[in-house]
Amino acid sequence: MLRDSSLMLDYPLRMTLPTDPAANLAELIRCPSVTPAEGRALSVLQGMLKALDCTVERPVFSEEGTPDIENLYGRLAGEGPHLMFAGHTDVVPPGDEGAWKHPPFAAAIADGQMYGRGAVDMKGGIACFVAALARYVKTHGRPKGSVSFLITGDEEGPAINGTVKLLEWAVERGEKWDASIVGEPTNPDRLGDMIKIGRRGSLTGRITVNGRQGHVAYPHRADNPVPSLMQLLGALLEKPFDEGTADFQPSNLEVTTIDVGNTATNVIPAKATAVFNIRFNDTWSVESLQAEIHNRLDRAAEENRLRKGAEQPVDFDIDWLGRPSPVFLTRDEKLVETLSASVEAVVGVRPELSTSGGTSDARFIKDYCPVVEFGLVGQTMHMVDERVALTDLETLTQIYLRFLEDWFA
Amino acid sequence: MLRDSSLMLDYPLRMTLPTDPAANLAELIRCPSVTPAEGRALSVLQGMLKALDCTVERPVFSEEGTPDIENLYGRLAGEGPHLMFAGHTDVVPPGDEGAWKHPPFAAAIADGQMYGRGAVDMKGGIACFVAALARYVKTHGRPKGSVSFLITGDEEGPAINGTVKLLEWAVERGEKWDASIVGEPTNPDRLGDMIKIGRRGSLTGRITVNGRQGHVAYPHRADNPVPSLMQLLGALLEKPFDEGTADFQPSNLEVTTIDVGNTATNVIPAKATAVFNIRFNDTWSVESLQAEIHNRLDRAAEENRLRKGAEQPVDFDIDWLGRPSPVFLTRDEKLVETLSASVEAVVGVRPELSTSGGTSDARFIKDYCPVVEFGLVGQTMHMVDERVALTDLETLTQIYLRFLEDWFA
Ligand SMILES: [Zn+2]
Ligand SMILES: [Zn+2]
Repeated sequence: MLRDSSLMLDYPLRMTLPTDPAANLAELIRCPSVTPAEGRALSVLQGMLKALDCTVERPVFSEEGTPDIENLYGRLAGEGPHLMFAGHTDVVPPGDEGAWKHPPFAAAIADGQMYGRGAVDMKGGIACFVAALARYVKTHGRPKGSVSFLITGDEEGPAINGTVKLLEWAVERGEKWDASIVGEPTNPDRLGDMIKIGRRGSLTGRITVNGRQGHVAYPHRADNPVPSLMQLLGALLEKPFDEGTADFQPSNLEVTTIDVGNTATNVIPAKATAVFNIRFNDTWSVESLQAEIHNRLDRAAEENRLRKGAEQPVDFDIDWLGRPSPVFLTRDEKLVETLSASVEAVVGVRPELSTSGGTSDARFIKDYCPVVEFGLVGQTMHMVDERVALTDLETLTQIYLRFLEDWFA
Repeated sequence: MLRDSSLMLDYPLRMTLPTDPAANLAELIRCPSVTPAEGRALSVLQGMLKALDCTVERPVFSEEGTPDIENLYGRLAGEGPHLMFAGHTDVVPPGDEGAWKHPPFAAAIADGQMYGRGAVDMKGGIACFVAALARYVKTHGRPKGSVSFLITGDEEGPAINGTVKLLEWAVERGEKWDASIVGEPTNPDRLGDMIKIGRRGSLTGRITVNGRQGHVAYPHRADNPVPSLMQLLGALLEKPFDEGTADFQPSNLEVTTIDVGNTATNVIPAKATAVFNIRFNDTWSVESLQAEIHNRLDRAAEENRLRKGAEQPVDFDIDWLGRPSPVFLTRDEKLVETLSASVEAVVGVRPELSTSGGTSDARFIKDYCPVVEFGLVGQTMHMVDERVALTDLETLTQIYLRFLEDWFA
């Protein structure tokens, strides 16, 4: 069990339970928490959680070369299963503020929509979950179990001093969870369309081809690395890695850059590099996919050698950049089924269980407990005039409430 | 007829005719004329030419953004045909001076070789031609015609304030030539191997493919320009432009750079560019080759459109960079045959008439008169320990002398 950090009492005291998602969201939007700034968004959230009688801690993580980041971990403790709600209060920059119909940090309401940066990604999700828990407590008292909030200020930034460290920090303090909901906007068009129950993996590689520099007029004395690089990339692009699986889209490889940087138009360059990223499904582990890529490249290099009648195949290296994310798929029946049923109960339609799209912090949480993602409609996220329908805020709050009732039942 | 520039009398006076090519070359090597510095190399040459009774001018050309360059135009005038000897006194940097067996500006002699930067490219050619003319004058008196020296200090540099402007400058002053020899090192292995009687053309193009930026996890919302660029380049590389002609090697295209410059590994870039250079033979004019390249690219774009079932073909632009050099081939019987016969008379073998290799200032001179290139053995040019056999200096001097005798006969 956690106790409040005695050094961090700088949050607004509240007299009422935060049961209104629109009021909660307006308070959060008015905190200009453009990543990596905290902007008082975590303090405002802390005030809401304290009103719910949560313990709250605000660990700050640092790493050389990155900004210090404030994070929040709050828990309403009880005997029984432990549900974690995860998310972030940092937001992407508003861009051209003059292009917004309503100022990005004002939470203006017009035509039934609340405008503001973070309205859907994802202060809105947090506002609704807090409101749902407040309504639960008001109606039922404390749940038979624990609800915790794992909230970072570093999801839109480098994500180094955020969720990964916050999870490790909490585990060191004895925290364990049985299930997690990440409140990112998952619905493409209408609220209730889509729950995300997994994500493809992500692997980034860099290919460097080493040739021999020379003058374009004497190509036989040089060895141009560019056609060799094109041929290696061709071997990665020419046929699909798979056709997709029952749970996932087909794996897809994109060449994100090719760079030679040769400014002399009469010189054959010595070296050429390319970077590719592959989003892959459960056909592959990181290791089996790396092996397949090595195979394709080696085979292409050998074919090329034979075709050119060369003694040596093309001289190339491959580096794997950053930390690969493995695929994950959440098969926890209670979590997925309870959430799906809650959505259906409120909006009348069963949501699609999807594994499409980009990675999220769920990829880190999945190492600790089953995790799904469900939140608002993502259409305006990261755009000018990011906004949320007030009806959506109410609907999502009802879905989260229904989920709390059923999951703790 | 030209008169000496009154502002330029700063050259060493000599009492003797410069008949010894090794002595001439030693004086020139000791002038550290690393491009764009004059290093007193033109002054030393001026002294030699004055001893031969030439008029000499030293025009300086300027252009914003490039260094001012000294040039030299000298003429031994007479009634009859006009032969121009062309070349440069600037040299490439010596590189790591400590790696040289003998200092690069000392003209040290060891084992029958004179060492120094410019020994073969191409102070040696100048030293031999001056010696040949000196011997001619000593034996026969002034030739029945004119011999002029068109020498730049900007061949190894940007070549903006050099031969092109010097030719225009001389023509404005009424100069006309009947033939030209460029004294660049043309022999691959042994002196007398090869006269260059033409050069392939050179054309440089840049292809830009415009795609649509997006996130790698949502490739259907983006349009990656990299595979399209690879496909367009593939269409330029997949089949040869020709098989070569009676006078020329096959045309050859090299992709000299591809650049995207995208550092975000989760982003599909908006744009990709590539530059290619093609060295082409007399199958093509600049215009017909540009048309062929446009055809290949348009056809590839259309095939790609059909294969992808897209509405629009890939959006790409092509720019032609710099000034294309057209092919040239010198068919002047008197010039080519007289020089070939002179080589055969001295070394006992007929030289190969070649059009291989890179461009030289001959590509500019060919617009004014027939031009060939013939000089020393190029093996050590631009390298550490650039050097020339003393016997080669004597042999080349004898060949140039024989040529002067026969051409003015
Ligand atoms: Zn988000
Ligand atoms: Zn040269």
